[in-house]
Amino acid sequence: MNFVSDNTYGAAPEILEALARVNSGAAISYGGDDVTARLTEKASELFERDVAVFPVVTGTAANALALATLVPPHGAILCHADAHIVVDECGAPEFFTHGAKLVALEGAHGKLDAKSVVLALERFQLGLVHHPQPAAISITQASECGTCYRPDEIAGLAAIARERGLKLHMDGARFANAVAHLGCSPAEASWRAGVDVLSLGATKNGALCADALVFFNPGDTRDFEYRRKKSGHLVSKMRFLSAQLLRYLDDELWLRSARQANASATRLSRALESIAGVEIAHPVEANAVFARVPNELARRLRASGAQFFDWAPAGEGHTLIRLVCSFATPDDDITRLADVAAG
Amino acid sequence: MNFVSDNTYGAAPEILEALARVNSGAAISYGGDDVTARLTEKASELFERDVAVFPVVTGTAANALALATLVPPHGAILCHADAHIVVDECGAPEFFTHGAKLVALEGAHGKLDAKSVVLALERFQLGLVHHPQPAAISITQASECGTCYRPDEIAGLAAIARERGLKLHMDGARFANAVAHLGCSPAEASWRAGVDVLSLGATKNGALCADALVFFNPGDTRDFEYRRKKSGHLVSKMRFLSAQLLRYLDDELWLRSARQANASATRLSRALESIAGVEIAHPVEANAVFARVPNELARRLRASGAQFFDWAPAGEGHTLIRLVCSFATPDDDITRLADVAAG
Amino acid sequence: MNFVSDNTYGAAPEILEALARVNSGAAISYGGDDVTARLTEKASELFERDVAVFPVVTGTAANALALATLVPPHGAILCHADAHIVVDECGAPEFFTHGAKLVALEGAHGKLDAKSVVLALERFQLGLVHHPQPAAISITQASECGTCYRPDEIAGLAAIARERGLKLHMDGARFANAVAHLGCSPAEASWRAGVDVLSLGATKNGALCADALVFFNPGDTRDFEYRRKKSGHLVSKMRFLSAQLLRYLDDELWLRSARQANASATRLSRALESIAGVEIAHPVEANAVFARVPNELARRLRASGAQFFDWAPAGEGHTLIRLVCSFATPDDDITRLADVAAG
Amino acid sequence: MNFVSDNTYGAAPEILEALARVNSGAAISYGGDDVTARLTEKASELFERDVAVFPVVTGTAANALALATLVPPHGAILCHADAHIVVDECGAPEFFTHGAKLVALEGAHGKLDAKSVVLALERFQLGLVHHPQPAAISITQASECGTCYRPDEIAGLAAIARERGLKLHMDGARFANAVAHLGCSPAEASWRAGVDVLSLGATKNGALCADALVFFNPGDTRDFEYRRKKSGHLVSKMRFLSAQLLRYLDDELWLRSARQANASATRLSRALESIAGVEIAHPVEANAVFARVPNELARRLRASGAQFFDWAPAGEGHTLIRLVCSFATPDDDITRLADVAAG
Repeated sequence: MNFVSDNTYGAAPEILEALARVNSGAAISYGGDDVTARLTEKASELFERDVAVFPVVTGTAANALALATLVPPHGAILCHADAHIVVDECGAPEFFTHGAKLVALEGAHGKLDAKSVVLALERFQLGLVHHPQPAAISITQASECGTCYRPDEIAGLAAIARERGLKLHMDGARFANAVAHLGCSPAEASWRAGVDVLSLGATKNGALCADALVFFNPGDTRDFEYRRKKSGHLVSKMRFLSAQLLRYLDDELWLRSARQANASATRLSRALESIAGVEIAHPVEANAVFARVPNELARRLRASGAQFFDWAPAGEGHTLIRLVCSFATPDDDITRLADVAAG
Repeated sequence: MNFVSDNTYGAAPEILEALARVNSGAAISYGGDDVTARLTEKASELFERDVAVFPVVTGTAANALALATLVPPHGAILCHADAHIVVDECGAPEFFTHGAKLVALEGAHGKLDAKSVVLALERFQLGLVHHPQPAAISITQASECGTCYRPDEIAGLAAIARERGLKLHMDGARFANAVAHLGCSPAEASWRAGVDVLSLGATKNGALCADALVFFNPGDTRDFEYRRKKSGHLVSKMRFLSAQLLRYLDDELWLRSARQANASATRLSRALESIAGVEIAHPVEANAVFARVPNELARRLRASGAQFFDWAPAGEGHTLIRLVCSFATPDDDITRLADVAAG
Repeated sequence: MNFVSDNTYGAAPEILEALARVNSGAAISYGGDDVTARLTEKASELFERDVAVFPVVTGTAANALALATLVPPHGAILCHADAHIVVDECGAPEFFTHGAKLVALEGAHGKLDAKSVVLALERFQLGLVHHPQPAAISITQASECGTCYRPDEIAGLAAIARERGLKLHMDGARFANAVAHLGCSPAEASWRAGVDVLSLGATKNGALCADALVFFNPGDTRDFEYRRKKSGHLVSKMRFLSAQLLRYLDDELWLRSARQANASATRLSRALESIAGVEIAHPVEANAVFARVPNELARRLRASGAQFFDWAPAGEGHTLIRLVCSFATPDDDITRLADVAAG
Repeated sequence: MNFVSDNTYGAAPEILEALARVNSGAAISYGGDDVTARLTEKASELFERDVAVFPVVTGTAANALALATLVPPHGAILCHADAHIVVDECGAPEFFTHGAKLVALEGAHGKLDAKSVVLALERFQLGLVHHPQPAAISITQASECGTCYRPDEIAGLAAIARERGLKLHMDGARFANAVAHLGCSPAEASWRAGVDVLSLGATKNGALCADALVFFNPGDTRDFEYRRKKSGHLVSKMRFLSAQLLRYLDDELWLRSARQANASATRLSRALESIAGVEIAHPVEANAVFARVPNELARRLRASGAQFFDWAPAGEGHTLIRLVCSFATPDDDITRLADVAAG
């Protein structure tokens, strides 16, 4: 019963199979191959516009490279205080941007709200060399609390960004889960709402090690390719990354896998919220459940073999726990956890 | 007839199959899994001592991370002027080390020689804050010219390093080809000769995207794990990297593949050297052939479908071309190239 | 009537004269000179222990170099959200530390409190490579709000730091003003209370361009001298920086100048607080006055020739203004401003 | 008898006096003051075109900031192997540029020659992400060997640069000595010959701690001001740096001081070259003499109280020594050294 993260599960069989299919013969290395060209076509079709797609092996690399491409060393990046780029990347954005500043803002349920962004921006004096200069807003979709930004919420942040010459980055490590929840098109959840560059996750949702950066404005890719190489992220046998992503996007595998994970989380959430003393902390809109539970219950779940994160202490005798479902989480595990929880 | 590089070929079928074998169920992410533990055991057995092994996805990442771990920002790294870290990594070592200096030295057939290293070291005044402080020597095995350092040559450089408190790094992107040529043990070609840290290549020799850093002194890994994460190189589903490396090292697959590639290069070299006007520029000790050929011959080869690198102009009407063989280069391609060359 | 900052005023005549006194003949460059040696002696005497003193030309350089010396690239630095290192250095700490993370905390009157530091530290999991690792606490003395940490408050933060292996840095751009207010010894306000390294300001209090880093633990200077050189902050004719600092510390010039500035601020504060509609926002413990004033009053002051900073909007029709006094602010300017304000 | 460097001597009295003249009253800090405005006017007049001038406190800062402003992190900078930026700045250019690569080329008498620059450039494949991309040529005027580039030599390098979209940087730590030697105008020695940005030294020639960056193309300053602040090089009481530079450039003080230093070096050189066994290694065109002397002579000179650098071993029983004269080197010291040398 592993609910620690969606990355504890392996790869989708379809994606593994795709590797074998691209393995024969020689191909141009470093991305000049046919599979990578087809990935760009596929992504452009999916997003309903020409996009530039660059496969990378981790979400941290995708985020840090995106920000370094958009933000100068003296820039500032506004984001949620719980954002992966703030909390979980060991300072990768600061390293890749050569010292830009992350401005961490609070916001309910893991989401930035327009008001606090505007307030924060007012603290920076534009053109004053003493102040880092706001250069980007970064949001996480689905958020670190398992909630999703609606297209109109994204558009609101994008408008703030555009007015001030900032770029809008979306950390879409769980973009699939968000699109599955929102029921909108990938375009509506990204560039149509004003996103400039998307870290498109695939690893957490069935790839082996493949995420992608999707640039919606060709002009933004400027020195990206040098940065990718200089940071050791240009893979020689690129076809093996591209093949993962191509299969992921093909035939709606990405959406089906995300729907499965989301449905598991919803089931889990419903089972837990019916239990006395348990409180669901954030709306369950993707594949994670945050529940405030009595410590005794947490202990009991663990004793039964369940694995999950203690997210934060949550008042007298309670803990906020995080349970994440993946495309491959067995239904039986959810049933079992629910049974144990129900006592 | 692709002789552009060994990374234009795909993966060894055995390695692809190994991915499927580790795919079931959940596993601890970020390297806490069983496959990664077995990789460490396997590598320790192979190198005849306890080693710390860290899978990464590119040789550039392996090299830059190794150097950043061993060398302070004010350090200097002595290496050959043709070294991959100097010529082909877009400044990754400078980025990862936060500005250390690569000192590029000439040397016959792509190899550093002890004398020029000692001479170069004399130009640095130790403890003088104006001078970058020599902190490491880096050598490439097999070298960029397709030659190999003998263990006693490595030991000579290691002695210079040790006397002055420098570390010895080996860029072993083609370590397998070198060991296959030398006929010594992996230990003899590395730590027994004084190597402190090895970038152990697998991608060029049959993996999909997996190289490894092998630290021979536990004390040297200090802050490595933070650097790997901070540079976006900590892969979440690590089992898929470790499985590639484990299968690579298992059952001598790495050596057999390298022997095959080396044998192909030797065959190719013999075919070429018998042709009038062709001169083999460097001893063929691994899987690359550097040949000085009349431009007319180069044109004819290309017209027949052969692909290879023009390495450098080589005097009136001649070019130095590089032909690289991989474990998967078809024997027929070599026969055909030889036939075309023979005219 | 310039109350914009204490750095708008020039140098103390005594310090200018000191430059001429060290100007004759040749001297060892880069800090090997006698004046620099005497500065170290003087500082050691003043702080009642052997200290290592390194002159630099700006407070930003002092802070960034101190933090880079103490904190690894994967480190985190806890500080107040209003700290100069967060707000006014354009990301210098992130640049010098190669990407460490500043964790900005709220706290009344510009001061960090122990409780919020402990809470913030609890959010970092020690040894987890995903999280930047807390490595230092940085406090500003006097604070950006013109308040001072008492030695026991410093000791409280130092205890938290020491328990967890963190270093305590003090940005003492206005250390003199704080010591003048506290009435304690320099030692009591620094290392006796647990400070590891002090950015000792002199420029704002009468030097031309000279601050100093004071390391209280010799072991902490490790690679500092390389970092100073590598960042372009090793001045060749060091005697001219050292002479400023030596004269500054000599004969209590630093304290007398600071007392004068503090007294001016106190006078100004008393004059303002008696005016209807004006509210002094922070205790005036150094040389700055933060006053919430009606916008009409701010306009009137400016119309009369007064210059000062609008710090922040402060509710309907009011602004929080900052007025800073220096050692050289004319008494008449304060009288005049008070008169204008009194209307 | 101090011939160690021109920075072992103090400041010109005229420059010290200039400090006192700008000391009264308040002034806008960080460069908004009148003195700095007059410096820009003065420099524009001197260089016969509008220039942007930014005072900094060290030549290393000037060089590193200039290069960081012109060169991206993935850029390469071609320069002489003896250049200060290669040998004596502890990797500052690599730090400030975030990892650009210095390509160190040999060249007679410390000067880059056009041919070797063109050859070196041919090794880089433009647009190939694996290769750092040539972005600037940097030359030192006067060179580290005490020789000077003639305007036509500069123009030759500038033409190579311009053709390929590279910038031309001049490290003019001893620009005054070069102009004094060349007898041309400052414009002819800089932008008219194709220099884009000049590190204009003053410290070695009579300032206390003031060099300046002079940008000849307004468009090149882009993010310079942020970089200056972010690296801690924006001095608050800027008038004290500007006053040094203004006085330096005023009334030809810079040229007269340089002529004096050059004349001293010439005298010294003549005295030495007449001595048996002594060989002047490089044309004496500025204020430094490089002499190959018997070790016995070097010992005798030192025994008499002379101080100078042993530059390099120079064959059996000989050393290449460097003797530098400053504007303030006493004539008597030269007479005495000549006498001791003559035996």
